[in-house]
Amino acid sequence: MLAPSLVARLRTLVGGDGVIDREEALLVYECDGYTLERAVPELVVLPRTPAEVAAVVRLLAEGGIAFVPRGAGTGLSGGTLPVAAPVMVCTSRLQRIESIDVVNRRITVQAGVVNQWVTNAVRAAHLCYAPDPSSQPACTIGGNVAENSGGPHTLKYGVTTNHVLGLELVLPSGEVVTLGGAVEDRPGYDLVGLVVGSEGTFGIVTRATLALVRTPQATRTLLAVFASVDAASEAVSGIIAAGVVPAALEMMDRLIIQAVEAAFRVGLPTDAGAVLLVELDGLAVGLDRQAERVRAVCTGAGAREIRMARDETERAALWKCRKRAFGAIGRLAPNYCTQDGVVPRTRLPDIVRRIAAAAERHQLRIANVFHAGDGNIHPIILYDERDADQVARVLAAGREILEACIALGGSITGEHGIGVEKMAQMPLLFGPDDLAAMVRLRAVFDPEGRANPHKIFPDAKVCVETRAPRRQVAL
Amino acid sequence: MLAPSLVARLRTLVGGDGVIDREEALLVYECDGYTLERAVPELVVLPRTPAEVAAVVRLLAEGGIAFVPRGAGTGLSGGTLPVAAPVMVCTSRLQRIESIDVVNRRITVQAGVVNQWVTNAVRAAHLCYAPDPSSQPACTIGGNVAENSGGPHTLKYGVTTNHVLGLELVLPSGEVVTLGGAVEDRPGYDLVGLVVGSEGTFGIVTRATLALVRTPQATRTLLAVFASVDAASEAVSGIIAAGVVPAALEMMDRLIIQAVEAAFRVGLPTDAGAVLLVELDGLAVGLDRQAERVRAVCTGAGAREIRMARDETERAALWKCRKRAFGAIGRLAPNYCTQDGVVPRTRLPDIVRRIAAAAERHQLRIANVFHAGDGNIHPIILYDERDADQVARVLAAGREILEACIALGGSITGEHGIGVEKMAQMPLLFGPDDLAAMVRLRAVFDPEGRANPHKIFPDAKVCVETRAPRRQVAL
Repeated sequence: MLAPSLVARLRTLVGGDGVIDREEALLVYECDGYTLERAVPELVVLPRTPAEVAAVVRLLAEGGIAFVPRGAGTGLSGGTLPVAAPVMVCTSRLQRIESIDVVNRRITVQAGVVNQWVTNAVRAAHLCYAPDPSSQPACTIGGNVAENSGGPHTLKYGVTTNHVLGLELVLPSGEVVTLGGAVEDRPGYDLVGLVVGSEGTFGIVTRATLALVRTPQATRTLLAVFASVDAASEAVSGIIAAGVVPAALEMMDRLIIQAVEAAFRVGLPTDAGAVLLVELDGLAVGLDRQAERVRAVCTGAGAREIRMARDETERAALWKCRKRAFGAIGRLAPNYCTQDGVVPRTRLPDIVRRIAAAAERHQLRIANVFHAGDGNIHPIILYDERDADQVARVLAAGREILEACIALGGSITGEHGIGVEKMAQMPLLFGPDDLAAMVRLRAVFDPEGRANPHKIFPDAKVCVETRAPRRQVAL
Repeated sequence: MLAPSLVARLRTLVGGDGVIDREEALLVYECDGYTLERAVPELVVLPRTPAEVAAVVRLLAEGGIAFVPRGAGTGLSGGTLPVAAPVMVCTSRLQRIESIDVVNRRITVQAGVVNQWVTNAVRAAHLCYAPDPSSQPACTIGGNVAENSGGPHTLKYGVTTNHVLGLELVLPSGEVVTLGGAVEDRPGYDLVGLVVGSEGTFGIVTRATLALVRTPQATRTLLAVFASVDAASEAVSGIIAAGVVPAALEMMDRLIIQAVEAAFRVGLPTDAGAVLLVELDGLAVGLDRQAERVRAVCTGAGAREIRMARDETERAALWKCRKRAFGAIGRLAPNYCTQDGVVPRTRLPDIVRRIAAAAERHQLRIANVFHAGDGNIHPIILYDERDADQVARVLAAGREILEACIALGGSITGEHGIGVEKMAQMPLLFGPDDLAAMVRLRAVFDPEGRANPHKIFPDAKVCVETRAPRRQVAL
């Protein structure tokens, strides 16, 4: 139980509307986009500036109080679940875009700036911020940095870490440090890279300097329809082998096609085994011939139909299928859990078979959306949360799918992070010594373990109980 | 003085020809490509396998003996200078290419594999390893990883860290850890990114899994001649603004043009202020129209002449100017020191003026070669090492140029690392607390400070003596 004097001091710091302690208001913060587990914080604090974040954290440091950083709460692995930490510090009110350098293509924003706003702010200068997770209209840069977020355009443009030049980080002590900066190369250790994806376990990011890219001059968007995931996967490998690097290369399987078609009636063939959405971008010159190449590869792999968007409206319609796929799922089941794993691109057909087997074994329906170019899979497991047995089967199927990813030479997360969701799977990838070394590394930033505790690393008991780990990804 | 019993045990481990202790043979190892400072190791050990590296390091750990890792010794910041470490461990005999995965575009090599060999090994499959430092025919992957090496193609393809998927690292304890792996995303902290560029201070990298890229289907190489560095810089900004991302965008100033022309007689105009070498690569489709754009931008910026290579021979001739620029310098002075700094691309004219001012102030000749697209400068300071006063002026001019880079919003190294050369400049970028935190971070891997001691971080005395640091790039 937090001392009332502390709550009062926090209120003085951030204003009366910046401290939430009423039980019903706190319910909003009981989970993020990963809804299978929930926990309510004792107190939510919403500072208005980077300096206020530092002041809040200093106050918590005085009392030795653990905290959970949170952006917009769109994360998908429970990274903002308040476990073993009474206070949640939200950066969502840190909404200032602080500076834009059009010529050198950089922008400095506060952590609460929404991902989409960054591109909006520089669109007139023909620039954009490349990483575009599906939650782009809601998620914040601070959260993107914590989770090293991806999105459909990572194949060509990379993930968040490839676009962050500098960070301001409030350490758990309340000390403010600045990492990296405006230039691309940093002497000494790559601390920006270390902090990106550290899921809030090093402190709270308050400012970020991001690299901008030029808005592509032109795009070509194609949808190819295949009889099977195998055939579509063959096309994926063929496109890459042809030397084309699409901006996006997305696959959807039959169940998701059917859901999308039922919801939006865009004319997708509901008997197809898989569709591939391919987007090319860049200079207009030559783009049509690249599109011809893609078309030829898809035809060679057995595509029974290929559509190309003739204008921006048709392009938007094709993307709608993909971007609203998750929404369409709502028609199929009351709840769904989006898994996130990676396999080598060539193993996509294998993992799809393993996913189908897991679905059958646990009597669950699983739809598949992939960032196929990256080998990043997103099995969407349908369920009804009112059925406890079904929830247990969802968790079991999720674990089996992740173990299959590892067995196929892949990993347990492509872009959603570990959070609380996948802590138990970490020992499948890392040995006990490796995990211990990572925990030592964390202690450099957070010696008392007060920043987002009980995340990423399983506790000692879990470590001991799991089976002998492979040392593939390890320290 | 090392115990004879230790030397004998090392000899048993790695073979008689794998231990060098004769004074004249040791002289080879007294410096790397940074020749302004020298130190001879007591003993050089050349293990033949990753397992032997681990065994050697374990033996050194037993005796608490510090060591310096070394690849081919082509580094340019003294990173392999044996200071405060009697034993040098060379990975140059670890020459095996262990596996190639053409479909998923990866290769696993031992640390002593030469950079150029990687591309040679996969050329038939139309793949290549993108990072190509100027020392490409000699430098090893282990050294590239330690220094996070760049090269002329970083503008489009990035530096070493963007191409390393996994590493095997022998910790100073002799323990072998595997970081990262075959997939692109890694859960937990980005330890591969942390180790890349750590300059041997975390241990010895013995194996690396690298990402390969497709050999560009076609290239277009242009040389544009300008009256001044300012005009050429305007063309650089113009090309980037036009949405073209050249594979390489290199600038040479008048002094280097004159040296190259004197050496190779390729027909460069020796009265030009600057030349720009622009290489476009990718799919053949549309490349000519991109080249037209570049030509138009250069003409608009005042280029008085633009040549385009008509075939591979002419392309090679144009690249010869750039790649042999350093060799040509030999005609101008007995010695030279290549500085390495970064400024925002738009500040290139400013830094060139500051370099010219430093040259005049210290009565030195300084030639300039830039990776202009990145803002990465390489002032080449000419001198005669037999003149101690001149050497002192070279060091002073180098320091001033680096300070000017910082003042212009840049940094003290673009691709050569800190080594021993720039330790004294670290406090200009980092505060004492920041440096202390980095040293704590290092202690996670190397608690006794036995791996490449006296590198990157200035010792306490230096810290205290330098002026108040900016906290721009910092932890």
